Amino acid sequence: MAFTLGHGTGNDFVLYADPTNELPLTEELAAALADRHFGVGGDGVIRAVRCAAIPDGAEAAEAGAEWFMDYRNSDGSLAEMCGNGIRVFVAFLQAENLAHPDDGEAILVGTRSGPVLVRCADHEYAVDLGKWKFLGGQAAVRRGCDCEVFAAGLDRPLGGLSLSVGNPHVVVVLSSTELEALDLTTAPTISPAPPGGANIEFIVVDGAKGVIRMRVYERGSGETLSCGTGAAAAALAAWARAGAEGPTTWQVELPGGVLRVRMLDDVVELTGPAKLVARGTLN
Amino acid sequence: MAFTLGHGTGNDFVLYADPTNELPLTEELAAALADRHFGVGGDGVIRAVRCAAIPDGAEAAEAGAEWFMDYRNSDGSLAEMCGNGIRVFVAFLQAENLAHPDDGEAILVGTRSGPVLVRCADHEYAVDLGKWKFLGGQAAVRRGCDCEVFAAGLDRPLGGLSLSVGNPHVVVVLSSTELEALDLTTAPTISPAPPGGANIEFIVVDGAKGVIRMRVYERGSGETLSCGTGAAAAALAAWARAGAEGPTTWQVELPGGVLRVRMLDDVVELTGPAKLVARGTLN
Repeated sequence: MAFTLGHGTGNDFVLYADPTNELPLTEELAAALADRHFGVGGDGVIRAVRCAAIPDGAEAAEAGAEWFMDYRNSDGSLAEMCGNGIRVFVAFLQAENLAHPDDGEAILVGTRSGPVLVRCADHEYAVDLGKWKFLGGQAAVRRGCDCEVFAAGLDRPLGGLSLSVGNPHVVVVLSSTELEALDLTTAPTISPAPPGGANIEFIVVDGAKGVIRMRVYERGSGETLSCGTGAAAAALAAWARAGAEGPTTWQVELPGGVLRVRMLDDVVELTGPAKLVARGTLN
Repeated sequence: MAFTLGHGTGNDFVLYADPTNELPLTEELAAALADRHFGVGGDGVIRAVRCAAIPDGAEAAEAGAEWFMDYRNSDGSLAEMCGNGIRVFVAFLQAENLAHPDDGEAILVGTRSGPVLVRCADHEYAVDLGKWKFLGGQAAVRRGCDCEVFAAGLDRPLGGLSLSVGNPHVVVVLSSTELEALDLTTAPTISPAPPGGANIEFIVVDGAKGVIRMRVYERGSGETLSCGTGAAAAALAAWARAGAEGPTTWQVELPGGVLRVRMLDDVVELTGPAKLVARGTLN
């Protein structure tokens, strides 16, 4: 079985091509491949399968997508979309000669949260993350918060702003000193607690330059090197905070690399690199 | 650049062959390859280089060894020997057609702690770990301890027995209940503290059956799935505890798998599996 190992700003994946659905990505296969000691190792496993070959791909096939990103987390659980994973997925399709979007062209990719458009340019990939929503409404945006976050290393309650970018996020604005003092080896808590939990983005905002420094705590994973939808949530919170005169393009600096976020009418676009590290075969 | 990914009871390594010393394993290369997010990922990196091709291999070449195990930890630091790594190394030499020890035959491997004999049998590998030493002398062996260990989850000071098996170890005997209650997410402490630190093996001993259950805290790494020299230290401590009538062969059950330890006159032998998971090329 052939596989590729790749990452997007340090979020790493094991990928394989299975055009005709002969080697389904089961929970067991995903967990075995993603195991960092007994398998290849990754944050998740992604299978490239033709939309027409699987029931889950029907909607995307109708919309004109050829390839479906079948994605599972490292524990084998199903994942809907991943802003870092889908960039690596498109780089993989190109490297395997499964799709040939030219520079500047876009490709429609089937995912469990619907078809997603990815534009290729200058070895980077711009992902349309679709519509987003401030969960506390405009009142929360004006106040800058709709919940409180308690985190180790900081001895004050922190105001958090709740957003959905497909998945739920809470964004907390800190000072530089606070971002460094923050201890994410233990889980921060949110009050009131969101029903299904949320990823928490801790950010330092330079509104004039449109630059954000960010650390992220992902529910179920702890602190990670990068979170694509988290970067988008962070930029949306900073953008709302900056008001009408603020920049609509933000650079988000994460421990694993740099992502760019752009506001386009009612959708948000995430741009970043994808790197294929190695190619191999399983014994 | 071609590489192989392999593990011995869950201790995993990136390996590559460089017979004529054209691609030295630098600190930077090792750290890049072993990185679990940006590289291939492993607990360490092992290069197979001919003893005759490097100054470090001169002693082993004279002793008759053809291949040198050039080994670095995942942070890029040099490592001398690894009881799990050397088994994977020999399996790699066989798979790459670099050495052909028959079943039951032994191969001499150059390492930074001198030439090491590895015997191949039934897809397992028996490693001569050489001489060992109870660091507190016979008085400590009679008492069963020469230091105190304090570990989270257990509210009593634990007696520890200090050994050298090439590297320093402290072995602590626990009850089954205590082994489960033990919390190794924080580092246990040893008093008096050994100058260079030590790995700590927490074991439950069934002396009649010659079976040990073990968890290990490795200095610098935290709790790991397996430690080869630690398994040998655990068996030596249990063997000394069992007295003259005790078994000279022990089965050590670790979170990552099962190892066997045998006492041979003044040396100790470690036997276990080695698994090559994948083979690939770096982009």
